[in-house]
Amino acid sequence: MGFSKDNLKGFVLALLSSGFIGASFIIKKKGLRRAAAASGVRAGYGGYSYLLEPLWWLGFITMIVGEIANFVAYAFAPAVLVTPLGALSIIVSAVLAHFILKERLHRLGVLGCVMCIAGSIIIVIHAPKEHSITSVLEIWSMATQPAFLLYVGSVVVLVFILVFHFAPQCGHTNVLVFTGICSLMGSLTVMSVKALGTALKLTFEGKNQLIYPETWFFMLVVATCVITQMNYLNKALDTFNTAVVSPIYYVMFTTLAIIASVIMFKDWDDQSGGAILSEICGFIVVLCGTILLHSTKEFERSSSFRGGSYMPVSPSLSARLCSGGNGELEKHEEEDGTPSEEICLRRQELY
Amino acid sequence: MGFSKDNLKGFVLALLSSGFIGASFIIKKKGLRRAAAASGVRAGYGGYSYLLEPLWWLGFITMIVGEIANFVAYAFAPAVLVTPLGALSIIVSAVLAHFILKERLHRLGVLGCVMCIAGSIIIVIHAPKEHSITSVLEIWSMATQPAFLLYVGSVVVLVFILVFHFAPQCGHTNVLVFTGICSLMGSLTVMSVKALGTALKLTFEGKNQLIYPETWFFMLVVATCVITQMNYLNKALDTFNTAVVSPIYYVMFTTLAIIASVIMFKDWDDQSGGAILSEICGFIVVLCGTILLHSTKEFERSSSFRGGSYMPVSPSLSARLCSGGNGELEKHEEEDGTPSEEICLRRQELY
Repeated sequence: MGFSKDNLKGFVLALLSSGFIGASFIIKKKGLRRAAAASGVRAGYGGYSYLLEPLWWLGFITMIVGEIANFVAYAFAPAVLVTPLGALSIIVSAVLAHFILKERLHRLGVLGCVMCIAGSIIIVIHAPKEHSITSVLEIWSMATQPAFLLYVGSVVVLVFILVFHFAPQCGHTNVLVFTGICSLMGSLTVMSVKALGTALKLTFEGKNQLIYPETWFFMLVVATCVITQMNYLNKALDTFNTAVVSPIYYVMFTTLAIIASVIMFKDWDDQSGGAILSEICGFIVVLCGTILLHSTKEFERSSSFRGGSYMPVSPSLSARLCSGGNGELEKHEEEDGTPSEEICLRRQELY
Repeated sequence: MGFSKDNLKGFVLALLSSGFIGASFIIKKKGLRRAAAASGVRAGYGGYSYLLEPLWWLGFITMIVGEIANFVAYAFAPAVLVTPLGALSIIVSAVLAHFILKERLHRLGVLGCVMCIAGSIIIVIHAPKEHSITSVLEIWSMATQPAFLLYVGSVVVLVFILVFHFAPQCGHTNVLVFTGICSLMGSLTVMSVKALGTALKLTFEGKNQLIYPETWFFMLVVATCVITQMNYLNKALDTFNTAVVSPIYYVMFTTLAIIASVIMFKDWDDQSGGAILSEICGFIVVLCGTILLHSTKEFERSSSFRGGSYMPVSPSLSARLCSGGNGELEKHEEEDGTPSEEICLRRQELY
C-alpha cells in the first residue's frame, strides 16, 4: 500500500509515457491526413509523401519520447504497476481523437475509458513497493532462481512448439498462434528491459554496472526478445485485422508479463491477500475497459503501418496498437464516395 | 479492511438475496410463458392466467425471500457494502436466462457481468466494519446529528420541489424527475430500513427495542418512504421505457444511499484514503458493468408489470428492476409474426 518515492517516479513516468504515446497517434494521423490532402496519395496505397510532413515527424518523435519514458519507468517501479498502465494511452488517444480529430467517441467507449481509469487507480493504490536493488548481480540471482528458470524454460519450449509446429500449420488461420508467440516473448522482453533499465539507472547513479558481463547478457536478451516479438507481431497484424489482434494481444501480453514479474521479483510476497486480490480485480477491470473500447471502435488495417511509419521500439507497444489511432484515416475521407466499410473489407481480402 | 463476523453475515445475506431475487425473475418468467401458452392471452395484454400457474407463485415467493434476506442484511452490514451488491442479482438472472431460458448473453453482456463481480470484490475487500450498536437510541442520536438532519432536510426540500414544481411541468417528458424522486426517497428508505432492521435484530437478541417510541417512529418512516418511492417508481416505469429508467435509477439510488450512509454512520471515518478510493472505484466499476449489461439487452415494457405480478417490497428493488428478467417474454414469442421491436414501439406509444 505504501507508495515509495521510486514507485512514484515510475508511476509518473508511466503516465507521461501513456500521454506521449497516446498523443503521438493523433499528431501522426494529422500529419498523414495533411500529406494525403497535399499529394492525393494515401500511405495505405503506397504513398510516402508523409515523410515530407513535419507534423508526422513530430508525432514520430513524440512516440519515441513516450517509449523512452516507458523504458525508464520499468527501472523505477514494478512491472505489475507499469505494464497495465499502458492501457491509459488508449484513453489519451481516444479523448484527443474526440476533440482534435472530431472522431465521435461512442457512449460505450466513454464507459471503457472510465473503467480503464478506475482499474488503474485500484492497481496503483495496491501496487507492491519496488525492491531496492544495488547491483545487477542481484537481478541476476533473481533471474536464475529455479522458479523463474522454469518459467523461462516453459516459455521457450512453448514458443518453439508454436513457431515450428503450429505456425506453418495453422498460423494463418488461428489468431492465437502468432499472438501467442508475441505475448510469450513479450513477457521475457519486459523482464529483460526491467533488468537492463535498472542496470543503466545504477550506472547513471555512479555505480557502474557495465563491468559485469551480466549487464551485456541482459542487453543481448532484450535485443533477441524485442526482435522476435516485433517479427511475429507484424506477422499477426499482416494476417489478421487489428481489431482482432489488439485485445487478444493486450490480454495475453499483460497477463504473462505480470506472472513473470511476480515469479521473478516476488512482487506479491509481502502483500496481503486483500491487496493482491484488489490488484487482480483492477487488472481485470482495465482489461474489460480495453476490450470495450476496442469493440466500439471500428478498426481496420492501419494505413500508416503499410507506409512504414510504424516502428515498434519497446514492450509497451501493446498500448500503441490498441489505440487504433493510426487506422482510421479512411473513415473521414469518405468523400470519394466509397463507404469506409467497403474499403475495409476490400483491404482485408488483400492479405 | 478487517472483515468482522457481522460484516460476513451481512455479506452472505446480501449474496443470498441477490441469488433469490435474480432467480425469481427466471422462475416467474417461465411461469408467465407457460400460462401464456396454456391460455393464449399474455399478461401484457391483460391476461391473469398466470395466477393459476404454480411456477409463477414459486417465483413470487422466491422474490419475497430475497427481499427479506436483503432487509436482514442491512441489519448486519453497512449500507455501503449491501447496496452495491444488489447489482449481482442482474448477473444471476442474466446467467440463468442464458442457460434456462436460452436467452443468448451478448459478448459485452459477459463483460458487464465480469465487471460487476470484479467491482463487488473490490467493494467487499474495502468495506468498513459495521459499528456495534446496542440500542435504537444510538441510531436515533446518529440520525439527529446536524450533518444528517441537513441531508434529510435537503432531500425533503428537493423532493417537494420535484413533486410540486417539476412533476406537473415536465415529469412526463424528462426521465430525471420521477427517477430523482425515487432515488432521493430511496436513500432515506435504506437508512430507515437499516435503523428498523437493527432495532428488530436487537429485539430478537433479547434487548427489547419496541419499548422506545424511536423504533415506532423508524417504522413510520420506512412505510412513508417505501410508499412514496414505489408510487413514483411505478410512475417512472409507466411513463418511460425500463431500459431508460433502470440504469439511471440504479446509479442515482445507489450513490445517494451511499452518501446518506457515509453521513449518518460515518462509515469512512476510520478508513484510510486508499480504502475509500478503492471503494469508490469498485462502485464505479459496478455501475459501468450495470450500464453495459443494460445497453446490451433490449428492454421493453415489462409484461408482468402490467399484469400486476410486480410488487415491490424493499429498497433493493433497483436490482430487481435492473435485471430486466421480467420484460423479455415477448422476445421469445415472435411466432405470432409481429417483430418484437414493433411491439415495443407500439407499447411505448400507449403511454
